[in-house]
Amino acid sequence: MNGAGRSIPHASSRAAVLDVIRAAGTISRVGIIEATGFTGATISTVVRGLIDDGLVLETGRAESTGGKPRVLLQLNRPARFAVGVHLDHSGLTYVLTDLSGAVVARMTRAGVGAEDPPLVVGRMAREVDALVDGAGVDRSRVLGLGLVAPGPLTAASGMRLTPPPMRHWEDYPLDRALREATGMPVVLDNDATAAALGEYWSGSIQDTSTFAALYMCTGIGSGLLVNGLTYHGASGNAGEIGHICVDADGPECWCGARGCTEVLAGPASVVAAARADPALARSAGLTGERKRVRPTVAAEFASVARAARRGDPAARALLERSARYLAVAARTLVTIMDLELLVLTGASLAIAGSTYLPVVRAELDRAFFARGTHAVDVRLSKSAATAPAIGAATMVLQTELVPLNQGLRVPANLAASDPHPARAGGA
Amino acid sequence: MNGAGRSIPHASSRAAVLDVIRAAGTISRVGIIEATGFTGATISTVVRGLIDDGLVLETGRAESTGGKPRVLLQLNRPARFAVGVHLDHSGLTYVLTDLSGAVVARMTRAGVGAEDPPLVVGRMAREVDALVDGAGVDRSRVLGLGLVAPGPLTAASGMRLTPPPMRHWEDYPLDRALREATGMPVVLDNDATAAALGEYWSGSIQDTSTFAALYMCTGIGSGLLVNGLTYHGASGNAGEIGHICVDADGPECWCGARGCTEVLAGPASVVAAARADPALARSAGLTGERKRVRPTVAAEFASVARAARRGDPAARALLERSARYLAVAARTLVTIMDLELLVLTGASLAIAGSTYLPVVRAELDRAFFARGTHAVDVRLSKSAATAPAIGAATMVLQTELVPLNQGLRVPANLAASDPHPARAGGA
Repeated sequence: MNGAGRSIPHASSRAAVLDVIRAAGTISRVGIIEATGFTGATISTVVRGLIDDGLVLETGRAESTGGKPRVLLQLNRPARFAVGVHLDHSGLTYVLTDLSGAVVARMTRAGVGAEDPPLVVGRMAREVDALVDGAGVDRSRVLGLGLVAPGPLTAASGMRLTPPPMRHWEDYPLDRALREATGMPVVLDNDATAAALGEYWSGSIQDTSTFAALYMCTGIGSGLLVNGLTYHGASGNAGEIGHICVDADGPECWCGARGCTEVLAGPASVVAAARADPALARSAGLTGERKRVRPTVAAEFASVARAARRGDPAARALLERSARYLAVAARTLVTIMDLELLVLTGASLAIAGSTYLPVVRAELDRAFFARGTHAVDVRLSKSAATAPAIGAATMVLQTELVPLNQGLRVPANLAASDPHPARAGGA
Repeated sequence: MNGAGRSIPHASSRAAVLDVIRAAGTISRVGIIEATGFTGATISTVVRGLIDDGLVLETGRAESTGGKPRVLLQLNRPARFAVGVHLDHSGLTYVLTDLSGAVVARMTRAGVGAEDPPLVVGRMAREVDALVDGAGVDRSRVLGLGLVAPGPLTAASGMRLTPPPMRHWEDYPLDRALREATGMPVVLDNDATAAALGEYWSGSIQDTSTFAALYMCTGIGSGLLVNGLTYHGASGNAGEIGHICVDADGPECWCGARGCTEVLAGPASVVAAARADPALARSAGLTGERKRVRPTVAAEFASVARAARRGDPAARALLERSARYLAVAARTLVTIMDLELLVLTGASLAIAGSTYLPVVRAELDRAFFARGTHAVDVRLSKSAATAPAIGAATMVLQTELVPLNQGLRVPANLAASDPHPARAGGA
């Protein structure tokens, strides 16, 4: 029987064990066996390897319910670090996290605007240097850099399907350029997907590992986490609820479809409507024409949101109209995935969330199809501004701690392409 | 180190190995190692157990690329059987499948209509007896009975969230009643979810194990398969696209929400519109008032579909309007899950699929958000009428071959409730 004698634990066991230790804080080997379902022999070998690599520490003993006390394990948090970068038209957010995903340094800089991609990449490399040096972290302990942005991103072609203000980034070889400029391994992904992962790793979601992050920054999207793993779909575009139809006869969106959530509810549509109302435009300070550089959509949306908070009725009406459409899209997402938790996140919801939260809650309480079987908990993120960057750093930790060339099997719900098991047959 | 000496392979390994052998047809142990990522030692133990239990056979040797020829394994198909029952207002479909999910006997009977649940259960028990006896299968080899119906079903309460014509089934203890009437273990699940699994196991989907089944029978729903496993969501309601909003200002649905796919596109709405047009009602033969028992919605929808096929322009217009809304819902589903394959199935699409297929295809070609990264393949099912029943039988095979009390860990994307790993900590 060929091959049946091998007993080296699979690399995916290592990833699963590391994640269980991270999520638990401290845990015994028996606790890991219970949490993963792996055999004791596998856990024993995997944990020994993690201790040898300096990633995990033994940290004392817990009282046992009988028999000898159990050794507790925890992550050696400062053993490794990762850089997370969230790139948006409206701003660049940087974080440096330790092995547990905890933020040890952060900074924000001006967005990419109309700047040329190579100039932005050069600036990012300098800003990453400043971040790491400022934190006093040895660069040899930095595993790599995760960059997240709107739309799906691929190593080969960088961004795809970018919204109009970022069209000049499409097909720019971002992965290679960033790798060359920083000297670090680079991981690229979608911002909304990263936001969901960031919400989970930042510790603000403690009670479940299956939920969606409803994300609004310059555009609208969502990220899906299933059992703590990001669900990407076939091309990294899962969860794009900015481009589902909430009104079959609605206006045309930049994506070419009709009645999309984004064209009806997105920050750009709110800003356009506010500009069309001279009194509101004045009250909200939307006077971009007189400035040399017109503010970003996200910045102008924030101005409208501040006017609403000051009690401007026209501003309130615009946000509430946007919220009603976003709520309908949220209900569609929750219905299709049958979710129990939705987290509102992203820079625009960090500013206007108090208007959107009650509208989304009311829609789900009133009309979610399975409301008779369970409620849906809707929360405002506590880390809306940094969640995508934290998620970006997390993706580095996940990728670099268990490199693909060590044989990591892509987790079931992450598989981008999906060979039929039959193909493995007949060997 | 407590517990680390255990080396009994986990029950989930057994389920995974069985499924790889089933999907492959014939496969070597090395092939299974490559397909599952388990260690050779685990595969060796699991396969030995499957052979000892009579579920798997050694079936000859394959040429190797060098070294000795490899022993091939295959399912012992007639070793076990399962009954699948699809219960709908419009009809009852029964199948008996072998261990591979292949149908060895099938029959259809009148739907449940307004009959009392206990009477229907008594009838089902007699019909199951006739199915098994007629096939000449020894009852000791029948693992159990899977029953699928609209809405989520739970062992404790039977059906929940039933559509109006089946309200009298809500909270009827279907699980217990069927178990007592048939003497078989019983598994309950949603019909659209079962349809997706049935499409996969019936062998009509060979090229991927991640796709959605868009299901239309009396109502509209969808089932999601991710890597060959059904995605249920928190309460078994995942994929309920009959109750997502495709028109925020649309009419109210029986579920209480506004602008649902089902109220705009479902068979009941098509039939109501056809009845409102006297010429079409006559042409389609919708003369239920004169009959003693009014035909079911699905039967009347089939009459309208036949009128459309005969070239009746009013019937065609009604189906095309329905198809346009269904296509928008399909696009939402495909966008959120980022799918590459959608299968149109269920009795109503078996009849009217040739009208719906081009409309759904055109909508996805024209407006699917990620159409620049990949196409979406839309197909008409080849087993639309039996897919839910085959899926029901499959659920028995999956459950009974690896009973929960042997320690099966619910696969990641099946977990109904999802304890945070932290809870396992500190042991």
